[in-house]
Amino acid sequence: MMERRHDRQFVRTFFTSPTAVEGEDNSAKMLEGAATLRGLQAPDVWVPDNEDATAPSMREEGAENIVEAVAEHGADFPGEIHPRVVWHRDRPATRYQGLQQMLTITDPAGGAAEHIDGFVIPEVGDIDDWKKADEAITWVETENDLEEGGLTMSVIVESGAAELAMGDLREEMGKPSNNLERLFLLVDGEVDYTKDMRAMTPTGELPAWPELRHNTSRGASAAGCIAVDGPYDDIRDVEGYRERMTANRAKGMNGIWSLTPGQVEEANTAPLPPKTGSWLLDLGSREVELEDAGDAQVYDGDHLSLVETPDGYHLTVGNEELDVDEDELREELLDRTAYIPSLDDAVDSMEEFEAAKEAGKGAIAMTRAATLRLDGIEIDIESDRMWDEATYQAAMTPIELFQDVYEHRPDQHEELVELYSEDVVERATAVGN
Amino acid sequence: MMERRHDRQFVRTFFTSPTAVEGEDNSAKMLEGAATLRGLQAPDVWVPDNEDATAPSMREEGAENIVEAVAEHGADFPGEIHPRVVWHRDRPATRYQGLQQMLTITDPAGGAAEHIDGFVIPEVGDIDDWKKADEAITWVETENDLEEGGLTMSVIVESGAAELAMGDLREEMGKPSNNLERLFLLVDGEVDYTKDMRAMTPTGELPAWPELRHNTSRGASAAGCIAVDGPYDDIRDVEGYRERMTANRAKGMNGIWSLTPGQVEEANTAPLPPKTGSWLLDLGSREVELEDAGDAQVYDGDHLSLVETPDGYHLTVGNEELDVDEDELREELLDRTAYIPSLDDAVDSMEEFEAAKEAGKGAIAMTRAATLRLDGIEIDIESDRMWDEATYQAAMTPIELFQDVYEHRPDQHEELVELYSEDVVERATAVGN
Amino acid sequence: MMERRHDRQFVRTFFTSPTAVEGEDNSAKMLEGAATLRGLQAPDVWVPDNEDATAPSMREEGAENIVEAVAEHGADFPGEIHPRVVWHRDRPATRYQGLQQMLTITDPAGGAAEHIDGFVIPEVGDIDDWKKADEAITWVETENDLEEGGLTMSVIVESGAAELAMGDLREEMGKPSNNLERLFLLVDGEVDYTKDMRAMTPTGELPAWPELRHNTSRGASAAGCIAVDGPYDDIRDVEGYRERMTANRAKGMNGIWSLTPGQVEEANTAPLPPKTGSWLLDLGSREVELEDAGDAQVYDGDHLSLVETPDGYHLTVGNEELDVDEDELREELLDRTAYIPSLDDAVDSMEEFEAAKEAGKGAIAMTRAATLRLDGIEIDIESDRMWDEATYQAAMTPIELFQDVYEHRPDQHEELVELYSEDVVERATAVGN
Repeated sequence: MMERRHDRQFVRTFFTSPTAVEGEDNSAKMLEGAATLRGLQAPDVWVPDNEDATAPSMREEGAENIVEAVAEHGADFPGEIHPRVVWHRDRPATRYQGLQQMLTITDPAGGAAEHIDGFVIPEVGDIDDWKKADEAITWVETENDLEEGGLTMSVIVESGAAELAMGDLREEMGKPSNNLERLFLLVDGEVDYTKDMRAMTPTGELPAWPELRHNTSRGASAAGCIAVDGPYDDIRDVEGYRERMTANRAKGMNGIWSLTPGQVEEANTAPLPPKTGSWLLDLGSREVELEDAGDAQVYDGDHLSLVETPDGYHLTVGNEELDVDEDELREELLDRTAYIPSLDDAVDSMEEFEAAKEAGKGAIAMTRAATLRLDGIEIDIESDRMWDEATYQAAMTPIELFQDVYEHRPDQHEELVELYSEDVVERATAVGN
Repeated sequence: MMERRHDRQFVRTFFTSPTAVEGEDNSAKMLEGAATLRGLQAPDVWVPDNEDATAPSMREEGAENIVEAVAEHGADFPGEIHPRVVWHRDRPATRYQGLQQMLTITDPAGGAAEHIDGFVIPEVGDIDDWKKADEAITWVETENDLEEGGLTMSVIVESGAAELAMGDLREEMGKPSNNLERLFLLVDGEVDYTKDMRAMTPTGELPAWPELRHNTSRGASAAGCIAVDGPYDDIRDVEGYRERMTANRAKGMNGIWSLTPGQVEEANTAPLPPKTGSWLLDLGSREVELEDAGDAQVYDGDHLSLVETPDGYHLTVGNEELDVDEDELREELLDRTAYIPSLDDAVDSMEEFEAAKEAGKGAIAMTRAATLRLDGIEIDIESDRMWDEATYQAAMTPIELFQDVYEHRPDQHEELVELYSEDVVERATAVGN
Repeated sequence: MMERRHDRQFVRTFFTSPTAVEGEDNSAKMLEGAATLRGLQAPDVWVPDNEDATAPSMREEGAENIVEAVAEHGADFPGEIHPRVVWHRDRPATRYQGLQQMLTITDPAGGAAEHIDGFVIPEVGDIDDWKKADEAITWVETENDLEEGGLTMSVIVESGAAELAMGDLREEMGKPSNNLERLFLLVDGEVDYTKDMRAMTPTGELPAWPELRHNTSRGASAAGCIAVDGPYDDIRDVEGYRERMTANRAKGMNGIWSLTPGQVEEANTAPLPPKTGSWLLDLGSREVELEDAGDAQVYDGDHLSLVETPDGYHLTVGNEELDVDEDELREELLDRTAYIPSLDDAVDSMEEFEAAKEAGKGAIAMTRAATLRLDGIEIDIESDRMWDEATYQAAMTPIELFQDVYEHRPDQHEELVELYSEDVVERATAVGN
């Protein structure tokens, strides 16, 4: 795995707050609420949003509000702080405004600069436009006596041109005339992307854009950046948010935008392995989690029936019917079951492989066994999976994410211990190093 | 949204006609039939096809036929005219033939040139091959005293090399040694693409090529071109053609090839918002449109049952059963319903947001309410969707398409008014400007 | 279709063998077993694997074993031989080791060089890394007195950087400072790719990576290489392996990794057209193959019922019910049926189109007729599909694959004749040439 370029190797959550809300006594109220979040409700990356979340007329005040809030709370905030300023590939006046906002936010007089980790640049276009934003940040660093290259740059990918630019990053970074090594997050912005692509759906729902998400994840992998998915609008729909994150992780996109502290908590938790493992049973039209009865994994629902016959077993799953002997039944059930390992299980497997490697073995069989009780009948199944170095490395990703969280987010230690137990947390932070 | 480079910002229909049919009294019969189409049966782009649709031996005659048909009918034809000539990335002789055909078609003596909007170039390869075609068109313009850059170039993307070239367009366009700004349509050609990729399916059916269609749409977005999908062979299958177009629009590919005037009419109509809105209900395995009974949206089918219980409601949808109170029922139904707005609804939302913006608001809640009658029981539901500037812009796409059609296709005004009413058409052409 | 650059135009199978197994009397046992495979169990490309399949401590011995095994068996082995050596984009020491291994394997003293067709380079990164591997092979050729450019290079695509590099191949090949024309196979390596992309799934199962497979197939098409999918771990699961291959072929990825002689046989056979054609019937939730009863294609299952009514027919398929007259029934059944042509059928169609072309026709209707017997009722259906030159070319792919196999694998002739009959094999090798 390519090392990521900055402190955080993983970013689970990207949480935006309006910087100035009109008609409130204190226009910075939302900023202050966000700045005081802690633990699982506090994001890995907090984004005081001086662009879309804040009305254009309030953005000057917004920049000042960021300075005040970050100067006051920045030292204690447990995540990183990356304000979003305005920018647009097609509008020079907007780009100039973005430069001014960054100068204001990092003005040494304001006392916020030392807590600002970088800036988020929306609406970027092709790679030359990314370079303009990079150069604007370099000016800001020079003008405000900050270390050159010390501010990261994260971009919102919300145009076809920006999607294509992600294919050029690796070869453009490190050229002597830019500081593109400052790139940190590649964040998809599906609403504006949909506009840019001129896509339409009958109900106005956003398209899923699987290719964009793949290309963002790939661009991040090739250039040492971190991929983050865009906002999930339907805040009520926690199940949908979780499904989106599961699909994203299968693409290597392990972070997501969060619009509320509730979404932050969901998204901080979702990529962590579960506390307890569980067995899944594939019933054709659906997959169910088996109930752990201690001595067996149980399914008693209506979608499967199993009866003993003189010659073996008669199995009915949905529309399919099978007459099988015991071995065939076991095979069939092996095909239909899968195990979701807990963090504890994951650490066990890591340790087992490391011990085998130390003993000179290149590959070992990892065995997973269970007793299933289906329709009252018990069957033992056991599956082997060959692990070699590559399997080990690929299985390491969730552990590395856990370790990255543990290292950078001490404010979450207590909740992690509560979730997993002291012992599991300790082993998980030690394994693989 | 990136402005498209030419007059038409949207192209719904790309209709090819054989230029010379052997064994007919009048070999130009198909051309003449097409040239006299009007209204919804007339395409946005008409393509007298001197390549695959015409036998090789008939193509010389075909070029002459184009001259005659376009000289006679071109002035009155309501769409644009873009003949397809021969070309092949691997065959210089074919490319030279293509040049000759273009010279013939735009020969000043023939009287067709002034009605020719551009040429369609098939079988292009990498970007250098696109430049050869561009240069050939520049020669044609010079030789035949046409304005340099006045002819557009549309390409058929039917090779892996051409798919990759779409990633380079933006940066190649505008270089001093080419006229690639003439690029207009990027049209997928899935039959030849399937051959070039050496793909096979058991029944010989074409693969769906979702990534190609994404990349074509993205290439169009990045370079200011317009994406068009290839031919849908099964002319009988109107439902399949519609489903393909719906999927395409979710990718930003808003135009499609049409093989018959019937397909033209379908494809001219499909991207326009419906006359009346409708509610969809998700029944798990399928989605149905609710029946509008005036006072309520009704579902009486077998796939949902709803009964009142002492504690609330018992809801059965497919295999799922829920016992819920009234609020939970409402939530569940909100998750299962969606509204397809009419053109009228779309204009209403635009106007509502514009008024809010004028009053200084950056975001407003758009409310959509309905009374559902399911299994005889009535439930009121109401959903809010937050609209900000980005939502507004993304929702604008179908309106912009409508306005583009209205501006460039006066021959369709009558049919549009008949479909939507005078009042809705008037408001739809005015909104957003 | 772009000509592929080397002898084989298609590669069905890529079979890896450990080069040295610890703790065996004869550490080269696996190599010798593989080297003596023949017929459908012998792969198109055999890969003595001195990387992941062999423990690091055994690789020096492994390189020696390759020399011995290939010197002894190489002349008689029916497929090509492409050893895999170590390489890593991020580790110069590993790359230097790879060079040493290649020098050892092709040392003139060992007698293996003349049977080595090329090398497989794993873990490549961006295009500059590919050039380093190419240069290493050039050194090997120079040092060991082999023809410059005579060894092919195949790569394992297992990083985002390598995926992106495939977009540059076409334009980098043929530059005077490299010998990248030696590129032969582009092989996906999904386990390491998953690690590089940092993707995670709940059960640890590999993501399907459809975009990677598309991009590999496209890269192969644009650069004259051959696309091969990575290993399918679950060796028990033959059905799953077949489904993966079917999906791959629809992407133009016609080859796949094989881990056992059993998988080789499956994968050598899967892309060949079937011996007998068959009709499919779409039952909504599933598709079934109809039973060929000689005079009719029969379905007697529970998922369709068809009864005659006074006005026509009542058809029930799953949840859908239709009252139709005979013509409507025929239309409905046409929509629900599809035919999988046999090799014999495919050759017939080719010959029919060629005859029509000779007679001056550019397009003809191919008719496919059948009598269906559904629930005891017989209906004749007949569908026409228009074939033009493009259809013919696209339909040619499986025949070209067959011909490529026939030309390069005489050891499989007997099995092919046994499968298809002498006559069909003869016509299939003759058609299209």
